[in-house]
Amino acid sequence: MKIVQCVPNFSEGRDRAVIEAVVAPLKDKEGFKLVGYEPDASYNRTVVTLLGNPEEMIGPLLSFVGKAAELIDLNRHKGEHPRMGAVDVIPFVPIKNIKMAECAAFARELGEKIASGFQIPVFLYEEAAADPSRQNLADIRRGEFEGMREKIKKPEWRPDFGPAEIHPTAGAVAVGARAPLIAYNINLSTADIGIAKAIAKAVRHSGGGFRYVKAGAAKIEGRDIVQVTMNLTDYRKTAVYRVFEAVKTEAKRYGVAVLGSEIVGMLPLEAALDSLAYYLGLESLPAGKILETHLLEK
Amino acid sequence: MKIVQCVPNFSEGRDRAVIEAVVAPLKDKEGFKLVGYEPDASYNRTVVTLLGNPEEMIGPLLSFVGKAAELIDLNRHKGEHPRMGAVDVIPFVPIKNIKMAECAAFARELGEKIASGFQIPVFLYEEAAADPSRQNLADIRRGEFEGMREKIKKPEWRPDFGPAEIHPTAGAVAVGARAPLIAYNINLSTADIGIAKAIAKAVRHSGGGFRYVKAGAAKIEGRDIVQVTMNLTDYRKTAVYRVFEAVKTEAKRYGVAVLGSEIVGMLPLEAALDSLAYYLGLESLPAGKILETHLLEK
Repeated sequence: MKIVQCVPNFSEGRDRAVIEAVVAPLKDKEGFKLVGYEPDASYNRTVVTLLGNPEEMIGPLLSFVGKAAELIDLNRHKGEHPRMGAVDVIPFVPIKNIKMAECAAFARELGEKIASGFQIPVFLYEEAAADPSRQNLADIRRGEFEGMREKIKKPEWRPDFGPAEIHPTAGAVAVGARAPLIAYNINLSTADIGIAKAIAKAVRHSGGGFRYVKAGAAKIEGRDIVQVTMNLTDYRKTAVYRVFEAVKTEAKRYGVAVLGSEIVGMLPLEAALDSLAYYLGLESLPAGKILETHLLEK
Repeated sequence: MKIVQCVPNFSEGRDRAVIEAVVAPLKDKEGFKLVGYEPDASYNRTVVTLLGNPEEMIGPLLSFVGKAAELIDLNRHKGEHPRMGAVDVIPFVPIKNIKMAECAAFARELGEKIASGFQIPVFLYEEAAADPSRQNLADIRRGEFEGMREKIKKPEWRPDFGPAEIHPTAGAVAVGARAPLIAYNINLSTADIGIAKAIAKAVRHSGGGFRYVKAGAAKIEGRDIVQVTMNLTDYRKTAVYRVFEAVKTEAKRYGVAVLGSEIVGMLPLEAALDSLAYYLGLESLPAGKILETHLLEK
């Protein structure tokens, strides 16, 4: 059986009733599992994780997009995370018995149906992008919901599917295919967003940092601290522990401490074990050393 | 289905041909899996890990004991690890759908068959022990193969099954049931066994250390270093990282560095994630955050 991970992000992270209603169409379905959903109040955004057969996901994902478009109005939305749509982004990640190209095909199929079903413009991104200029999600989303109103009318930002104007309340959505990534945030003992920005710049690829790190800065709602918020886009080459230690090292420049960190969504076992092996000085810690991997086989 | 982990240890860790021959009866069997076997040259001992249905293990385990008794002569055996038998110890560990008492019953069944089949005396230990004085494996094994020749004739050390004299070449075997433990060794940058002994004493329960740590000292064959060799008998209460950090702290007293550590046999996922959460400052890292645990379910 083909297995993908699908990680839709939608723009509500505070109103529990709305979050539950939007997620409901993804619950208890045949062929895939709703692994979890994690609302973030500061971001005012929820990350959903599905795992299973992508063919079975398409229908429920359409209901999910429809419910989000019905209940979320981007004109009234504020949060620490950049966003352009009620459902903001839907990536498909190949996990087992499936190639990236097939994931891109599922992204196109879903994108086309979202556009025709809800008149929401769809941008295909990363491995599903029709053009290299559309690969980087940050480029597509730059300007966010508010800026997209004009941006989408430019010929170079014509959406891949749907009208060349944003949905009045649900904005636009990016649908794509990509390699597994780790969403990883590190909290700092300061309220100074400038320090988080400087550290983010130091560790991210575009600022001279690690090859597979994208990073930004965000405030933490109600805690009076800031965080470096990151995507680790290839954990085999840029390890979690290395990024954590680098942020600790940078933080010292500012007399700031690292309070802790958090994984948003799922962490691949290999990434967890690699970092643990580093800290315990183990030569290696292959998945086969973990009892449960044998228990659950076959 | 009932699932146990069974971790037989036998007294050969150097001669590859003997190791393969002894392990052969456990390979490719129905109902359980030979998860791995790890020879240790310094210990001259191999740790085997089986996972699956204990009923299916009994027959192959008897063949395994028979092969070890045929090929291993304890009179010529030397190694850094205490031992009293060709097969030295066979613990059953409850993993799924099985209680400790049932594991103890399987230990008794196997013990009885080893004694009657091979005239090897059998001691039941830990949760399978008939008497509290037999719970602690170290007490049973004290004196090792050489000392057991006389010890076993004493009324208080009469074996639970089999003759009150050691098998002339295969010694005696301890068969038992116990909670999961982690066999964990930490290497030091010194050849001074006295330092490893002092650190072992400081961290183990009997020396005033952690409640669920048993520890000793051993030389590492051919590397001119020593190690603290431990069993963590309840990783939920005495965490791996805590023991590792404590050994690092103690090592400083002697101007010695910790070179690294190693897990012998299997590591439960929960123990791995708890230690990783500590090092990355994660509030928690439940198994559900690991992608593969969802993939492999049901």
